[in-house]
Amino acid sequence: MAYGYGQEDCPVARALDVIGEKWSLLILRDLFRKGPLRFQAFEAALPGIAPNTLSARLKSLEAAGVIATRLYEEHPPRYEYNLTEKGKALGPVLKALHNWGEAHG
Amino acid sequence: MAYGYGQEDCPVARALDVIGEKWSLLILRDLFRKGPLRFQAFEAALPGIAPNTLSARLKSLEAAGVIATRLYEEHPPRYEYNLTEKGKALGPVLKALHNWGEAHG
Repeated sequence: MAYGYGQEDCPVARALDVIGEKWSLLILRDLFRKGPLRFQAFEAALPGIAPNTLSARLKSLEAAGVIATRLYEEHPPRYEYNLTEKGKALGPVLKALHNWGEAHG
Repeated sequence: MAYGYGQEDCPVARALDVIGEKWSLLILRDLFRKGPLRFQAFEAALPGIAPNTLSARLKSLEAAGVIATRLYEEHPPRYEYNLTEKGKALGPVLKALHNWGEAHG
């Protein structure tokens, strides 16, 4: 994982290196709400996201160990995505964002 | 405020419209830790941020009512930035990110 802004010692900065971008957090939100999802389900749930952006965010979240993929069809190969334990541990972050958005957003 | 991805009904999406970007959250983190800050103090605290990016993020956070500016010198005009009540209400989001980054980041 590259930090890029010299703040490796800060847990907030490290957390944001993994999820500090709105699409990543909305992908996690959808997995919390709906469980395992296929690529097409994310596209439908996130109008406005470009397929290559979605693909890049999913790969980045997987590389960070926050989500995992599972092959559910071999011919042609198709995958679904779900939260890992590390990803599920982000629940309080989403909850805090939800509460603030409800009160102030 | 523009939403841009058709999810106006979701508090998480609304929250991320305001703060869903790593620099914005790091700016807020620095204000929580250090209180009112001048532009140059952010630049020093956030190595790697381009001045025009910092300026754009500060303007965006101010437009969202999360931070406020105060003129502390008139000739030449100089400003400092601080959290509003709405901004202080983001404390639990930063705390949740901190906790997750410490355990998993």
